[in-house]
Amino acid sequence: MNKGLTFLRDAISGSPAPAAPTDVSATRKRGPQPVDGTPGRARAVVDAVLPVVDGGRFAVKRIAGEPIEIEAHVFTDGHDVPRVMLQWWKEGSSTRQEIPMKLRYNDEWLASFVAPAPGRYAYTVVAWVDAFESWHHELERRVDPEDIRIAARVGAHEIEAAAKRAGDGADARMLSAWAQALEEGAADPEIDADVLKALALDEQRSDAARRHPDRSLEVSFSADLPLTVERKRARFSAWYELFPRSAGDTPGRHGTLRDVAARLPLIASMGFDIVYLPPIHPIGRVQRKGRNNALGAQPGDVGSPWAIGAEEGGHKSILPELGTAEDFRALVASAAANGLELAMDIAFQCAPDHPYVRDHPEWFRWRPDGTVQYAENPPKKYQDIYPFNFESDDWQGLWTELKSVLDHWIAEGVHVFRVDNPHTKSFAFWEWVVGEVKREHPDVIFLAEAFTRPKVMHRLAKLGYTQSYTYFTWRNTKQELTRYFTELTEAPGVDYFRPNVWPNTPDILHEALQGGHAAVFKSRLVLAATLAATYGIYGPAYELLEHLPRGPSSEEYLDSEKYQLRNWDWSPDAGLRPLITRINEIRREHPALQANRSLRFLDVENDQLIAYMKQSADGRDTIVTVVNLDPHNAQWGWVALDPHLLDIEPQEPFQMHDLLTDQRFIWRGSHHYVRLDPNLPAHVMALRRRVRDERDFDYYL
Amino acid sequence: MNKGLTFLRDAISGSPAPAAPTDVSATRKRGPQPVDGTPGRARAVVDAVLPVVDGGRFAVKRIAGEPIEIEAHVFTDGHDVPRVMLQWWKEGSSTRQEIPMKLRYNDEWLASFVAPAPGRYAYTVVAWVDAFESWHHELERRVDPEDIRIAARVGAHEIEAAAKRAGDGADARMLSAWAQALEEGAADPEIDADVLKALALDEQRSDAARRHPDRSLEVSFSADLPLTVERKRARFSAWYELFPRSAGDTPGRHGTLRDVAARLPLIASMGFDIVYLPPIHPIGRVQRKGRNNALGAQPGDVGSPWAIGAEEGGHKSILPELGTAEDFRALVASAAANGLELAMDIAFQCAPDHPYVRDHPEWFRWRPDGTVQYAENPPKKYQDIYPFNFESDDWQGLWTELKSVLDHWIAEGVHVFRVDNPHTKSFAFWEWVVGEVKREHPDVIFLAEAFTRPKVMHRLAKLGYTQSYTYFTWRNTKQELTRYFTELTEAPGVDYFRPNVWPNTPDILHEALQGGHAAVFKSRLVLAATLAATYGIYGPAYELLEHLPRGPSSEEYLDSEKYQLRNWDWSPDAGLRPLITRINEIRREHPALQANRSLRFLDVENDQLIAYMKQSADGRDTIVTVVNLDPHNAQWGWVALDPHLLDIEPQEPFQMHDLLTDQRFIWRGSHHYVRLDPNLPAHVMALRRRVRDERDFDYYL
Repeated sequence: MNKGLTFLRDAISGSPAPAAPTDVSATRKRGPQPVDGTPGRARAVVDAVLPVVDGGRFAVKRIAGEPIEIEAHVFTDGHDVPRVMLQWWKEGSSTRQEIPMKLRYNDEWLASFVAPAPGRYAYTVVAWVDAFESWHHELERRVDPEDIRIAARVGAHEIEAAAKRAGDGADARMLSAWAQALEEGAADPEIDADVLKALALDEQRSDAARRHPDRSLEVSFSADLPLTVERKRARFSAWYELFPRSAGDTPGRHGTLRDVAARLPLIASMGFDIVYLPPIHPIGRVQRKGRNNALGAQPGDVGSPWAIGAEEGGHKSILPELGTAEDFRALVASAAANGLELAMDIAFQCAPDHPYVRDHPEWFRWRPDGTVQYAENPPKKYQDIYPFNFESDDWQGLWTELKSVLDHWIAEGVHVFRVDNPHTKSFAFWEWVVGEVKREHPDVIFLAEAFTRPKVMHRLAKLGYTQSYTYFTWRNTKQELTRYFTELTEAPGVDYFRPNVWPNTPDILHEALQGGHAAVFKSRLVLAATLAATYGIYGPAYELLEHLPRGPSSEEYLDSEKYQLRNWDWSPDAGLRPLITRINEIRREHPALQANRSLRFLDVENDQLIAYMKQSADGRDTIVTVVNLDPHNAQWGWVALDPHLLDIEPQEPFQMHDLLTDQRFIWRGSHHYVRLDPNLPAHVMALRRRVRDERDFDYYL
Repeated sequence: MNKGLTFLRDAISGSPAPAAPTDVSATRKRGPQPVDGTPGRARAVVDAVLPVVDGGRFAVKRIAGEPIEIEAHVFTDGHDVPRVMLQWWKEGSSTRQEIPMKLRYNDEWLASFVAPAPGRYAYTVVAWVDAFESWHHELERRVDPEDIRIAARVGAHEIEAAAKRAGDGADARMLSAWAQALEEGAADPEIDADVLKALALDEQRSDAARRHPDRSLEVSFSADLPLTVERKRARFSAWYELFPRSAGDTPGRHGTLRDVAARLPLIASMGFDIVYLPPIHPIGRVQRKGRNNALGAQPGDVGSPWAIGAEEGGHKSILPELGTAEDFRALVASAAANGLELAMDIAFQCAPDHPYVRDHPEWFRWRPDGTVQYAENPPKKYQDIYPFNFESDDWQGLWTELKSVLDHWIAEGVHVFRVDNPHTKSFAFWEWVVGEVKREHPDVIFLAEAFTRPKVMHRLAKLGYTQSYTYFTWRNTKQELTRYFTELTEAPGVDYFRPNVWPNTPDILHEALQGGHAAVFKSRLVLAATLAATYGIYGPAYELLEHLPRGPSSEEYLDSEKYQLRNWDWSPDAGLRPLITRINEIRREHPALQANRSLRFLDVENDQLIAYMKQSADGRDTIVTVVNLDPHNAQWGWVALDPHLLDIEPQEPFQMHDLLTDQRFIWRGSHHYVRLDPNLPAHVMALRRRVRDERDFDYYL
């Protein structure tokens, strides 16, 4: 046995060296100082931490229980090696979790963590130039025996220092012995440099040294970045909107909350998650609107549910015709029993006879003629609606009262709010109230109904809204859809703006639907449900192909439920219900459709065919959707889908399984023929990869 | 005369109303509060201010005397109208300049300002919801006579409030009278609503009201954004590097600073702005490198100028063979007389015999064998170079001394520094020293020679370097050039990273040049000089087509001046000097070539032809450059240039004037034939627009 080997064996045990006093670095107050307040000797740089929204002014949004990927750009001068740690913590917690980050390439370091529950979190990145790691990295590349000998002695010093930091446990003893062995080996000319190098690079010992780094020159990224973690429905949900007053089955009878409860099994069976009800509060009588938005209501006209408040009460009350607080609680319970959640409409505005107007005149803007300023956008007037004056001297009283409305309904079991026109109320109010509510109830979901200018919509999303209505309704051509959904899935918006797309709403019957072609209703449904992880329809109008507008250039429905009772066909197979049921089933079975980030459009040389792909985060689930946008004609073309994108060999066949028709197509190569008829204008196809079993039999899985 | 007109006339004069006590808004401490600390009643939102680098952590860079365009995203809830002000100030100034911003569209507000002189500035944006402006905007759209009457009374209150804010000058009197007239007119049924509306919208009076806004609910963007303003050469300059020791005309004699002075007229006549000299300090003798980087120097070998310091002195001294401090001052003066500036090389490293090693051993890293750790990147070793240890306990002493080196040469008249390998020194040091120097001398230019990873290069630019070396030398194909220069001219990099592109340096003789084809030297020169506003060449090697590498796969020059004296042909017409002279002349005459932001690549369906366009900020100067990248063959193709881009009608002819050959081509339509021969492989063409004079004679201007 040569001396090197003996030495290696001996080196395994050893006794710790005595502790030396720690170096105290100069702490002069004057003289040069780093601009950013880091220690002057610190050489690590944390240049960027991602994701980030507006430099940390607003929170990034993620989902509880899912990996949250963090990237940092970290480096130092020269060839030394930084060590990089991701730190994350729950708001208010005094301890930070720490996860080592790994270098991908190009100075990009990665780590991920899982926030266990909804709530407010924060993260940042710290780094230091690691003397041990730098020495280790250099030594790996050393070849000159004399250099290796010197390096061993340098390393011995670093390791001895690590031993001191380790205190007096097993690590300390091992490190001290290792340092001593390196010193001795370096001094002994009979020890081979290669043997010395192998000892110095010993991975088990190195790991022990890494456990006790010198972090005195640690630097931190310039900001702690806020993070809002929500439950999965914040990202993936299917909404169904209906008017309770039309939920009954007797024409002319005012529907009730009990009628709604009776509809829940049907809605649940269609695969929806959230049932959204327009306002259920007492409706103003003063300036009440008649059918089709007529200025004067006729006797018996029920008025608009958004003209909230009358003698019977305001935002915390229930319209007597709909039922009682008891009925509401029963409805909430029934929803839960059906696997559904109730979403309540929050419209912070008042009918002229709302009790607030009498009790809190200071919350409204008064005109010189002694009347309250109603909502208007000249020359349009909404005399039945009084907006709140957020410049009121009693703004704090107003904010407090409005929050109490949310608190009231949360106490009644509502955890999803669809907020009407949030862009016409103070942004500072929303940032405060959404923040406060979510601090107390992290599972509450807020959907912003802001059909307005893009920067305004983005601000609402930044300041805390969970989901946002979009321009989807007005994006109909292939080019419009491609551009818009590409934008929606890009940073920075993708980190805070969660689209909730609707092919119709009670306010928007798009021209494309007014022809009443089932093909358009089908294609818009498939687009909504597969382009976006969250979508909704206003039913039963949608599935029953309701399509007549109030007037020639109007997007309003004729005989809209907004102003009158309607009566609908509630049979399970009516209209598009079977298709909707299947689509929602597919969405639930396929994680690829439960997030938006992976969306990628595929070329098809036919402007009437749009094709796109989504994949689950783990890459295991792939859905390709192709939609024919032409309601009149069959369309065909070649979809470009490079098998490389799917991790499939160029000439390897793969199966596309159409989940709507159960047809199975074998594709191979990069261009694939599709043909779609207006009768069923979409393929929603799952990728099945070829597998060969032990009998040499091919099948697709 | 009808009553309305009399009334309008009367309204011009009037007496001010008595001042009323100001409303005091509630200042309760408890209760709800906006998250960002703004006043609770404030409703304006400043969502983004651009340009911005890393949320304001680093400064945007701009040029003194040129308009600096600022954009802000500002809006409020509902239909009210914000007023928006850009504020800017010189660092340390107690007063802010304020400029009204104008709405472009999509909530984007714009304004620009001119910083008069180099220095450190800051800017931010403030906004408030303006009650007067909102009223004015609403009134413009009002049609109902009764509404107009009420609006007049609302406006009267706003105007009266403005009158009170105006104090007791002419505005106050005019506003008070106006308010009174509106009140009276509103109350008088004989006054026509249209007349009342016209009075209420009177622009001259409105402007007076706008001069006295209520800014009590003003909000400010979340950060003050820093701005570094520099002189024009920071953006637009042509550099010429030469080794003083080869500047003489007698072979074998060591060149001197006086020899350099004698070359300045030639360099100036070639159109360069900056003459950059490698280090001129005493060169170490210990471990000196021989010719072609040989490990041992032979007697008489002059060593590498970057091995700084010997018995005679260090970074503040001059190599005796080059001359004296007097000679240096004479050289600085001579450069100025020739319209040139001297750039000094700053290489913060030491030869083993540098006086610092003896006087400040604490600034170096010592090895266990009692030697100083030399520079190395194992297995490569640079035994003639000792790096500083920026983790030294005396880091403040080191920082102070290094700054004193810069201060020394600034005092000697140097205001341009080319910093050698800044990425191997502490980033915190650079941020401090560049900041301090530029605070004291805002006209100093720092060029970072960091041929390293992209994020490291960007960090150096962010922390204050004026200009940066680039990957241009290694970007040779059309695709490489297009991608790289597109990236260089995009935000956020374009706001802080100013490329300085070099077809060669003493360290880099790219393979493409090693064939010695004049066509390559010409095309790379034209590319450098027209793609980038700042470029440089290492001469006379470049213009004399020096092209032999030290070895087969080496980018080093054979017989490099880095290690030995060379002797060059200094005659004015040698090699590419006439072409270089013409190119630099074109650059100076054409503002389009003096900035990078406008760069736009033009399609040519020939991979050997690259075409691009640049325009001056005012759009008046347009240069189209086409380069043949094939040194062996003529290449032709059709350049796609849509006349729409040039504000020229589709079928209108325009002239492209080749500034290299004085040829003139008439182009029309959107595709234009070009053919380039390797002999002169580029067009650099100025757009001349067709003008028709009074005799109906067409010419191009």
